Amino acid sequence: MINNMKQLTVDLGGRSYPIYIGTQLLTQVNLLTQHIKSKQVLVVTNTTIAPLYLQSFLENLSTYQLESIILPDGEQYKTLAYVENIFTHLLTAKFNRNATLIALGGGVIGDMGGFAAACYQRGINFIQVPTTLLAQVDSSVGGKTGVNHILGKNMIGAFYQPQAVIADISVLKTLDDRQLAAGIAEIIKYGLIRDYEFFEWLEVNIELLVQKDEQSLAFAIERSCLNKAAVVAEDEHESGIRAILNLGHTFGHAIETGVGYGKYLHGEAVAIGTCLAADLSRRLGYLNDADVARIIAIFKRVNLPVLSPKNLTVNRYIELMLVDKKNIEGIIRLIVLEKIGKAMLPISVEMSILEQTLNDYQGR
Amino acid sequence: MINNMKQLTVDLGGRSYPIYIGTQLLTQVNLLTQHIKSKQVLVVTNTTIAPLYLQSFLENLSTYQLESIILPDGEQYKTLAYVENIFTHLLTAKFNRNATLIALGGGVIGDMGGFAAACYQRGINFIQVPTTLLAQVDSSVGGKTGVNHILGKNMIGAFYQPQAVIADISVLKTLDDRQLAAGIAEIIKYGLIRDYEFFEWLEVNIELLVQKDEQSLAFAIERSCLNKAAVVAEDEHESGIRAILNLGHTFGHAIETGVGYGKYLHGEAVAIGTCLAADLSRRLGYLNDADVARIIAIFKRVNLPVLSPKNLTVNRYIELMLVDKKNIEGIIRLIVLEKIGKAMLPISVEMSILEQTLNDYQGR
Repeated sequence: MINNMKQLTVDLGGRSYPIYIGTQLLTQVNLLTQHIKSKQVLVVTNTTIAPLYLQSFLENLSTYQLESIILPDGEQYKTLAYVENIFTHLLTAKFNRNATLIALGGGVIGDMGGFAAACYQRGINFIQVPTTLLAQVDSSVGGKTGVNHILGKNMIGAFYQPQAVIADISVLKTLDDRQLAAGIAEIIKYGLIRDYEFFEWLEVNIELLVQKDEQSLAFAIERSCLNKAAVVAEDEHESGIRAILNLGHTFGHAIETGVGYGKYLHGEAVAIGTCLAADLSRRLGYLNDADVARIIAIFKRVNLPVLSPKNLTVNRYIELMLVDKKNIEGIIRLIVLEKIGKAMLPISVEMSILEQTLNDYQGR
Repeated sequence: MINNMKQLTVDLGGRSYPIYIGTQLLTQVNLLTQHIKSKQVLVVTNTTIAPLYLQSFLENLSTYQLESIILPDGEQYKTLAYVENIFTHLLTAKFNRNATLIALGGGVIGDMGGFAAACYQRGINFIQVPTTLLAQVDSSVGGKTGVNHILGKNMIGAFYQPQAVIADISVLKTLDDRQLAAGIAEIIKYGLIRDYEFFEWLEVNIELLVQKDEQSLAFAIERSCLNKAAVVAEDEHESGIRAILNLGHTFGHAIETGVGYGKYLHGEAVAIGTCLAADLSRRLGYLNDADVARIIAIFKRVNLPVLSPKNLTVNRYIELMLVDKKNIEGIIRLIVLEKIGKAMLPISVEMSILEQTLNDYQGR
């Protein structure tokens, strides 16, 4: 039990907002309601979270004109069609432009809820209540919202910042091991891209995260959010440095799209992608063999996959990577590591070198 | 033939952009290409415009990696599903975040193209080439993009500003009378809401617009865009004064949604709605009978409708008006005229007075 709630700020001038991190935050109703500026409130959640937390969450908000919508759980449902369901719900309830949408769930719910909030009547208030480790350390912070297209992951969306992020560590008790590990993949990413000290801490303490030790989780979530908030404050719309947050993601998105959304969790695909990015960094002369081994080792300790799906061919991989948002004029651009703890801005990568990496990390 | 091109600016700091108004602008290729910062260009147009202008438009851009998509023409096709078609086209062509989308068409194409540009990879470059009078004087300027929902007009969208607006008066030669009149409805609106001198000019010269006199069109388009640009610069996201641009639109949107998108042109529905708003302004003690008569008369001179569809009941009207974006907590808020040439910020309207207006302007 941790009593100390941490509060960080994503510094974006007039659109700055707090991230609250701590235990039992969902029972502290004022934490949430101080950010609701309307009578009309829609809670968007999914079939996994609803039976666990929805009823008590709604009871805390009983003074509002309250609606809820329960979407199916999984990346394969992160589509324009399900966002349209949210619009229909909002319109049927005659919700106006001053309404508030609360996303209570993991990354999929946060991305879809945020995109719905961005587009409904050209923008309504939005609060993130992330319930997975991945959402708490990564996807709920920074304003990237959107849905997948059958031809590409996260290809449709908006930059749309929430009014607040409430990360309640207590809800992680009900998170299954696979989801937990997927979240740890993004935590490791922060160490790799800009926080060597944190990476060293993770090398010592990673099993504490796997065991859901609350103090360790609180520290890792806070440290991850600090890193993310700093990058987002510097480059909200990813015209530069923000791209380093995508270490491993171009590979990861290709995996998720290529094998079908929902087969791999996002964090699992990112784990594989980060190992590929590490190998590529080695081939380009930045990392040495020992660095790559350290990186692969830490993912393995969390039981995360480190090899590509065996049914994803190199040609298909490259075809999928060609639609990545970082590319320019059909040239694949990737994030690589200059060293552990420091990522570089996107660089164009020769196809022959990329193919070597893809071949060497093909699952069997 | 007018040789003088006019250039206005929508002043939004770092996101300011020019509006070019003149004849034969589509043949001045540099006017367009100076705003294209990419190799990849998608032209979005419709089945009416494509046979008239698409081929020569594309020939002017032959040095680019060029794609085009032709959507069906009409408000009933302004849906999320057709925007998804644009995404699919962009992804199939492997277009990246630095691509440019050009909307070549009327308000529907501009709204859909702009929304697609806002959401594709969270935002790509966007240029408006409006080909209807309504789009040239109103919808292409100011960054409102979006689509309709079966339960409400323009309920899904984004504020997303173009890089430039190119309004070529020459293309209005092929515009049919009904479309022309619909555009004049929005022109009259600018006189009513904030430009009494312009309204007086219109009372003298409106038949010249109906006859497509180029000098008169050029003047009216420029004056309309000047008014719109001033309002948008003051209040981009409609937190205040921008709402006056919606004079007559709450009624108009209810008509369009109520009878089915595409039956009335947007400008026709706005003409009816503006007459209703004028009547309401009279009932609230702002306008006198003579004012209302002047307003109705000018719409009639353009052959625009001034009475509601006879199959739209008052109850259904009110139900539809309850989802309007200006409403707060289920109270209908409307724009009324303090006098001809001056609109007021949205005010809450008593249901009994609203019903009187709706009853009196019911078509028979």
